[in-house]
Amino acid sequence: MTDAATRADDYPSRVSGDPARSTRLDPVVHGSPGDGPLSPGALASFERDGFLVCEELLDPDEAASLLADVRRLTTDPGVAASERSIVEPNGGAVRSIFDVHRRDPSFVALAVDPRLLGIARQLMGSDVYVHQSRVNLKPGFRGQEFYWHSDFETWHVEDGMPRMRAVSCSVLLTENHAWNGPLMLIAGSHRWYVACVGETPDDHYQQSLRKQEYGVPDDASLTRLTEEGSIEVPTGAPGSVVFFDCNVMHGSNGNITPHPRSNAFFVYNSVENALVEPFGGRAPRPEFVASRDFSPVASGGGR
Amino acid sequence: MTDAATRADDYPSRVSGDPARSTRLDPVVHGSPGDGPLSPGALASFERDGFLVCEELLDPDEAASLLADVRRLTTDPGVAASERSIVEPNGGAVRSIFDVHRRDPSFVALAVDPRLLGIARQLMGSDVYVHQSRVNLKPGFRGQEFYWHSDFETWHVEDGMPRMRAVSCSVLLTENHAWNGPLMLIAGSHRWYVACVGETPDDHYQQSLRKQEYGVPDDASLTRLTEEGSIEVPTGAPGSVVFFDCNVMHGSNGNITPHPRSNAFFVYNSVENALVEPFGGRAPRPEFVASRDFSPVASGGGR
Repeated sequence: MTDAATRADDYPSRVSGDPARSTRLDPVVHGSPGDGPLSPGALASFERDGFLVCEELLDPDEAASLLADVRRLTTDPGVAASERSIVEPNGGAVRSIFDVHRRDPSFVALAVDPRLLGIARQLMGSDVYVHQSRVNLKPGFRGQEFYWHSDFETWHVEDGMPRMRAVSCSVLLTENHAWNGPLMLIAGSHRWYVACVGETPDDHYQQSLRKQEYGVPDDASLTRLTEEGSIEVPTGAPGSVVFFDCNVMHGSNGNITPHPRSNAFFVYNSVENALVEPFGGRAPRPEFVASRDFSPVASGGGR
Repeated sequence: MTDAATRADDYPSRVSGDPARSTRLDPVVHGSPGDGPLSPGALASFERDGFLVCEELLDPDEAASLLADVRRLTTDPGVAASERSIVEPNGGAVRSIFDVHRRDPSFVALAVDPRLLGIARQLMGSDVYVHQSRVNLKPGFRGQEFYWHSDFETWHVEDGMPRMRAVSCSVLLTENHAWNGPLMLIAGSHRWYVACVGETPDDHYQQSLRKQEYGVPDDASLTRLTEEGSIEVPTGAPGSVVFFDCNVMHGSNGNITPHPRSNAFFVYNSVENALVEPFGGRAPRPEFVASRDFSPVASGGGR
């Protein structure tokens, strides 16, 4: 793939034996207060921290209904056996199901819900499309950790996302405690790009969705980010929604408690930031992980 | 070992293919308000929850000095290579060093500190000796989980501790956050004895100190205990001390944050509860894990 080899790359990663940190070259907030529901204060908070928690943006009843849908999907043998389902590394339990915004009616509807979409459009300053969607059910007792990573690093290297102009949206479906393996974010880390060492093997996604081994940031960079910023653990009632920047460093500890942790997850990418050839020079990941249908999402109206 | 096979056992475990739960047959608090520094309210709290947090029982300066001693020990190649040191399952870093109350001067002194000893004697209603001691340094980034367990289950089956009349004492040497793999306790769980399934292999301790595979409580019992009680995460400044009953169910999640978690740990057993032949019928674990020197600890006076 000679194009990739000769093309300029503002965010190189996995090309050197040494980690490196560089300044982010893209805005964090691309829209304005007039463009959507977020106040100037909320926009400033997202810009500073790299994430924003919207408490109970959905009603508890809606969250309960969506949780029932997740449980139904994760216990459906047909769904569990499909390529788009990811099982725990120690076998058995379904941890994630991808591509729900195109295949599973409740999540088709949720992906175009104006309460989510209005905020995503405002933050991205444009129309958006869904780059990736999934539901996660982190099981109790044996829930595995997910190591620190920037989503953008992977999406850039493996999917060909050119710029930092995408936002993730996590809809909490269970009570998130500090001790059952919740999402941890390093506030302020989105302002830096941490280039990881090493190369990406072919078909890396089949392993990386289970357990990350490439695109892993180094200890020194992580320590520096947590010293300059802070580790934040958004906790909240079901129906709360966490929006977080594509480049904020995040991860989660394992979960030995009996309390599973479940959420629905959508990545909204700006239509002006459509994928190109992957910057890592290898074949793109499949559609169910990184969509190449760049049509803008149309708002689905009220539910 | 026919004695063990024919001896009555109030707390059998690892002898059946089915888990079982029975009522605790021993008191939780063995002493009285007049016997030591704890108030009637503090004693009632320990009796109800199975643990008690004494905020900053040691000065921050003392905790900092002890932390420096732990770091020195865990990086000493001679100590790291010794049998009493436990390394992380994924290799390398020292997680625990045992028998510090007999071998390492700062911890020899700490084990007999009247601030710890007064409380331990009051809770046990007698003189006490140190059944086990260790320092723990849960590393950052790759700190492993420690699954739910009752210490007494192991001490009874593998060490021959007859009754529930021992108390663990964890001296916090680093700031304990909710998200860096802290000790989690199930409040109220100490009132039940959960018999685990399966048998204990020979020399089990060499594996179990790294990763528990036997003496593991079942999912249904854990769920029931957390429904009847609650998961509690004592957080606190360095120098705070957590006393917890020998039979309270506890564990900890892994730790991917850069923040290590360190503590010094002593188990005070009543001199009236000296070890006998292990109830599991196998050879006792070695002295550095389960002491058979039952001489009462003499208070070391002020530091």
